[in-house]
Amino acid sequence: MDKNLIYGHHPVVEAIRAGKSVEKVFFQQGERGEMEKEIRHLTKEYGITLQVVPKDKLNRMVKGQHQGVVAYLALVEYQSLEDVLPFVFESGEVPLLVMLDSVTDVRNFGAICRSAECAGAHAVIVPQSGSALANEEAMKASAGALSRIRICRVRSLFSTLEWLQECGVQVVATALSDRAIPLYEADMSVPTAILMGSEGDGVHPKLLKMSDQVVKIPQATDFDSYNVSVAAGIVLYEALRQRVN
Amino acid sequence: MDKNLIYGHHPVVEAIRAGKSVEKVFFQQGERGEMEKEIRHLTKEYGITLQVVPKDKLNRMVKGQHQGVVAYLALVEYQSLEDVLPFVFESGEVPLLVMLDSVTDVRNFGAICRSAECAGAHAVIVPQSGSALANEEAMKASAGALSRIRICRVRSLFSTLEWLQECGVQVVATALSDRAIPLYEADMSVPTAILMGSEGDGVHPKLLKMSDQVVKIPQATDFDSYNVSVAAGIVLYEALRQRVN
Repeated sequence: MDKNLIYGHHPVVEAIRAGKSVEKVFFQQGERGEMEKEIRHLTKEYGITLQVVPKDKLNRMVKGQHQGVVAYLALVEYQSLEDVLPFVFESGEVPLLVMLDSVTDVRNFGAICRSAECAGAHAVIVPQSGSALANEEAMKASAGALSRIRICRVRSLFSTLEWLQECGVQVVATALSDRAIPLYEADMSVPTAILMGSEGDGVHPKLLKMSDQVVKIPQATDFDSYNVSVAAGIVLYEALRQRVN
Repeated sequence: MDKNLIYGHHPVVEAIRAGKSVEKVFFQQGERGEMEKEIRHLTKEYGITLQVVPKDKLNRMVKGQHQGVVAYLALVEYQSLEDVLPFVFESGEVPLLVMLDSVTDVRNFGAICRSAECAGAHAVIVPQSGSALANEEAMKASAGALSRIRICRVRSLFSTLEWLQECGVQVVATALSDRAIPLYEADMSVPTAILMGSEGDGVHPKLLKMSDQVVKIPQATDFDSYNVSVAAGIVLYEALRQRVN
């Protein structure tokens, strides 16, 4: 059993109320009543993803009496982007952020956090739902970087993108679209959030449209594309190269 | 059972003699006699790694009568670097090669081949022993690039490095050593072989000493280092950036 799981009505409610980094709550299909209302209300209030699953799944997840509810505690303490960004500006540094849209593969997520930490990125921004769990596999793939870099979980990438732009942070999205300019032509010496999409679907078209710049990593062949964690490393390198020169 | 395994004295001997891409031969501990002599002789002649293992291991590998010998067929057709390099020069292209020293992780190997294919590298060079198997997991991590890019298996990285230099190909090694210059200061617009080491040990000190340039990827923090497949992607990107500009 995963040691980051807690279960049962009261333990889960207490963990959420105590402000613990609850990654996700799994709730038993068909359960109704006061507990259901309380869990739904609390997860909504604290912005935690609630997933309804069959009882069988909960039985497989934990060995004890789960009473229809299991919570997955994050290995990391999520931070608030609204706290992090002003802090970076005030410390006189030029913000460098990584935003991940639908990167659900835990190894890629971990590897990206490792590169982000190496490159001195100030935070990795992930959406509340539809992103990889910060679990032990992600931690391993990050070589421990997950516990060093700030991870900010946001309700919506759309409003976060707008907010970043209002704060003077440009958003540079990677895509293979026609609009994309070669990576090295984008000026990333200014406050920048790098937006990476999932391997399958790329960045959401609406987010792409909202971005200040769309860049592509040069390829010499028409073969597929770079792995998303390699691509993130390349964009971070290019930002660093521009900033030290 | 892995479909790339063949076993039994005659099938293995025939596969080697027929020039099939045999990755490795596993031989039963304690087996002596004519067969042992023949297998030892043949693997040496064809430059195939021979690994002596307990009978139990062979029993787990195959379901049939293995007679003490099992061969692993490569998923890729290895090519000769002595054929590939003149061909690249003759076609008017500027050689870009990737050399891997002790990269044994199949996923990293696959991911590096994927980036190499994207960046238009002409070949990936691996040593005969002590490198990752080109197996199904590597193929998956490469997104199929393993079957597109040329893989050259060489007996010795030391003599290959010397031979490349004689042919006018500079060797650029990555390391965190004091001698290392920032990656972007190395001129990779000329014929170049990028030498990457394993995550644990890096590039062999003797190979490092023999290299024309030693580079490091800039980091903004003292955190660990980039994953080797991310690092390879970054060096390939820098080469491509210099070549298109």
